[in-house]
Amino acid sequence: MENEIDKLINLFSRLPGFGIRSARRIVLHLLNYRHSLMLNLAAQINHTAKAIQVCHICSNLDVLDPCSICIDPKRENDKICVVEQVNDLWAIEKSKVFHGKYHVLEGTLSAFEKRGPEDLNINSLIDRIEQNVISEIILATNSTLDGQTTAFYLSEKLKTYDIKISKLAQGIPIGGELDYLDEGTLKAALELRKLF
Amino acid sequence: MENEIDKLINLFSRLPGFGIRSARRIVLHLLNYRHSLMLNLAAQINHTAKAIQVCHICSNLDVLDPCSICIDPKRENDKICVVEQVNDLWAIEKSKVFHGKYHVLEGTLSAFEKRGPEDLNINSLIDRIEQNVISEIILATNSTLDGQTTAFYLSEKLKTYDIKISKLAQGIPIGGELDYLDEGTLKAALELRKLF
Repeated sequence: MENEIDKLINLFSRLPGFGIRSARRIVLHLLNYRHSLMLNLAAQINHTAKAIQVCHICSNLDVLDPCSICIDPKRENDKICVVEQVNDLWAIEKSKVFHGKYHVLEGTLSAFEKRGPEDLNINSLIDRIEQNVISEIILATNSTLDGQTTAFYLSEKLKTYDIKISKLAQGIPIGGELDYLDEGTLKAALELRKLF
Repeated sequence: MENEIDKLINLFSRLPGFGIRSARRIVLHLLNYRHSLMLNLAAQINHTAKAIQVCHICSNLDVLDPCSICIDPKRENDKICVVEQVNDLWAIEKSKVFHGKYHVLEGTLSAFEKRGPEDLNINSLIDRIEQNVISEIILATNSTLDGQTTAFYLSEKLKTYDIKISKLAQGIPIGGELDYLDEGTLKAALELRKLF
């Protein structure tokens, strides 16, 4: 009961959304199916960890670099949707209403957590704007204080370029996170996006 | 974003307590730490899956068979605590109040899920009783319909042996507030009330 099982429970309990009880529950479930599910899960985690790369253009996570969205010829090259994290990109992709490209900031500005513009993928966004013909930037950060601060900072910084800058419509509940919104709300927020 | 990541999200979403959203969140968290946490987790799951065995005496899960509880000379050999699953054993071990041995049934009788006595580790329990000097059997099944049915079945079956058969006390949990308890618990607590 000690060592190997406890080590695994400890690893799981440190994942987001897990406590010690839910970690124990998962580990017991895995142990009950250790020759099928458990070995399979280990192999898939290992395989995915080694296969996935960060896209050097947009910072999406994919088996390809550049990622499959960046190299997709069917997608509009002149629209960039700026998101905080990859899960926000996944959420928007699920709504199937946006057909441009993305840019993952990998965070927000945050006074509390001491993150400044240099900690986000902002320079690479500006490089993309300067080196490509971009007609619109959609600032799809979360509707949180830090998310909106980041959107405002970017909208000010990008004013020097002749580009339409929009943000998601205020259909997003205050304090809401993109990853937890239903697809309909996301779709409406994208379709009703407003100019800064 | 497709294939490898989706495969992993699917695997996680089928674990107990997971939905598609929490699976995505975990996978993204893992991907953000894929050279440290993620490979580490894969290795530990794989290692634990291969190292863990079912104890042929009590059906506990351990790196040893017989398990470390069964071979522990400090534990009382004449008391067996019968539990439904290994996580119940873990819970009782945490309380540090029981120093005997265990017997894991690996389930309960269930009319709904069509599980009879032959589906549980009951024969191995009777073998242990007949081949060892046992003074007490504690039936520590859950306080659910199936758990209590199983305890009643076992108590009847074990009547032929000259052994004390006990079950866990029912009542209000320590720190429990009456207002938040279900009626069944309150009823039991009232009926089993004790004199000051």
